[in-house]
Amino acid sequence: MEEIKSLGQLAEQVKASGTKTRIAVAAAEDAHTLDALGRAVKEGFVRASLIGDKRRIEELCAKENLCQGDFEIIDRPDETAAVNMAVQMVKTGNADAVMKGLVSTDKFLKAVIHKEKGLLLPKAVMSHVCVLEIPAYRKLLFISDTAVLPFPDLDQKAAMINYCVNVARGFGIEKPRVALVSATDKVIGAIPNTLEYALLAKMAERGQIKNCVIDGPLDIFLACDPSSLAVKGVDTPIAGNADILIFPNLECSNSFYKGLMLFADGELAGLIQGTQKPVIVMSRSESALSKYYSIALACKMAGEK
Amino acid sequence: MEEIKSLGQLAEQVKASGTKTRIAVAAAEDAHTLDALGRAVKEGFVRASLIGDKRRIEELCAKENLCQGDFEIIDRPDETAAVNMAVQMVKTGNADAVMKGLVSTDKFLKAVIHKEKGLLLPKAVMSHVCVLEIPAYRKLLFISDTAVLPFPDLDQKAAMINYCVNVARGFGIEKPRVALVSATDKVIGAIPNTLEYALLAKMAERGQIKNCVIDGPLDIFLACDPSSLAVKGVDTPIAGNADILIFPNLECSNSFYKGLMLFADGELAGLIQGTQKPVIVMSRSESALSKYYSIALACKMAGEK
Repeated sequence: MEEIKSLGQLAEQVKASGTKTRIAVAAAEDAHTLDALGRAVKEGFVRASLIGDKRRIEELCAKENLCQGDFEIIDRPDETAAVNMAVQMVKTGNADAVMKGLVSTDKFLKAVIHKEKGLLLPKAVMSHVCVLEIPAYRKLLFISDTAVLPFPDLDQKAAMINYCVNVARGFGIEKPRVALVSATDKVIGAIPNTLEYALLAKMAERGQIKNCVIDGPLDIFLACDPSSLAVKGVDTPIAGNADILIFPNLECSNSFYKGLMLFADGELAGLIQGTQKPVIVMSRSESALSKYYSIALACKMAGEK
Repeated sequence: MEEIKSLGQLAEQVKASGTKTRIAVAAAEDAHTLDALGRAVKEGFVRASLIGDKRRIEELCAKENLCQGDFEIIDRPDETAAVNMAVQMVKTGNADAVMKGLVSTDKFLKAVIHKEKGLLLPKAVMSHVCVLEIPAYRKLLFISDTAVLPFPDLDQKAAMINYCVNVARGFGIEKPRVALVSATDKVIGAIPNTLEYALLAKMAERGQIKNCVIDGPLDIFLACDPSSLAVKGVDTPIAGNADILIFPNLECSNSFYKGLMLFADGELAGLIQGTQKPVIVMSRSESALSKYYSIALACKMAGEK
């Protein structure tokens, strides 16, 4: 399998697959979301059911020059009703993926994790993988968790790694390099996260985490800049060539990726992990392009299940 | 006073001041450090005493095409002896600032914080301010703490703000805008740091922190991107126009700035805070240019005391 090295290439692959993925969108009355969906529908790889405030959706379609006929529009102005219906469409096999529109992430995910009516796999950790494209890096970076777990514990970090490895392998990276990111490359008591990293590295050595090369703690330079190894005198199999970055907590990952979106021309595709079917949760402040890429990622993952 | 908007402008100002700052360098046997010092000496604003392994320093000078005669070289091959001597030179008024070379930060700072022989101001919080220049941002960003405090508490965060405000005002920014950075703009119990931010904002309102505009929690978009305010519907006086970013912890600040150094062509100038005289601590992996800018910043701050 050819390695996918950019988000544009991801979208091309999904287009070329000839599959139409049915996406149910909860509270779809959001301009960027509609733009991204409209493009995916036009390019032929998505059929979208827009569930929400019909009048507002139609207004936005007119304003954004989108053809209402490209979508199925279902009037559910109450956002809880819209969220529940979107999740149920996936649950009952009437949609292949679900996407959050203009509703709070908390409210949306509450429906996703509902014990009987939700989409979470039994005993699964719910997390998030973000595929980050930065022009200055020579390949894609798979990072976690930028959206769901504020302070992941050891088991949750192991789950984050497995999710990232799974997505990266879907992109054709057979044995991705996983850097466990901290401020230092030393295991020190003053930064407890570095202790968990040492445990994770040992777990990988024992075969408890598979299909990847793991090392940490590492700082961003050692993880992503080959020239820093010699300078720092650190020997690591990641070798400044990481495919996957695991972050200690949400504040850390969030500041990292938002800094790069803003100042390094980054774009991303993100997807919730641990669910039966793809779940797309984007922040309102993400670009329409990142939303489009996330839809493409959901379509790719839906096709692989 | 004219606002300093780039690190190049900072260096120009220091050069134009006509002052020569005497810098004592501990364990100076490091190529990037010598390059940066050599440039500052040549440009006439630094007199440098290189304390360390004389033979190794001379070898490096030859290799880097630096004139040994530009420096005073003092042979102290033992790194603890070199560190102690450098700090004592400042303590006794024989140098105006001290700089770390090829010795661990821990060992170096141990001498700096020594109760009798050290340089810490009475009862001061030792912290670090980093001035970050990112071509894609329209002005300099003063960030803290990227080097010293792993998990600053409320009082330490207040000290970090005060240090940043003081440095920013030295750059001509009369009332800097301080963004307290998190993953969210909501005050939520699940992310305890956001609670501290609410307290800090109130402290500023009560005049306990002065000469600045403070708001938080804010994410990087709300702090640095004016266009995100309308999208997110958040009203904040920072308005995407932050001068200062305060981070929850070292792992967060460190990943943020290293990502931007690597992928957004960042350069920086950094300085320890809470000391009687300027103290320069640079990571080995920082560029020679960032080391040069840090020297210029130390000279500027030495001139203001």
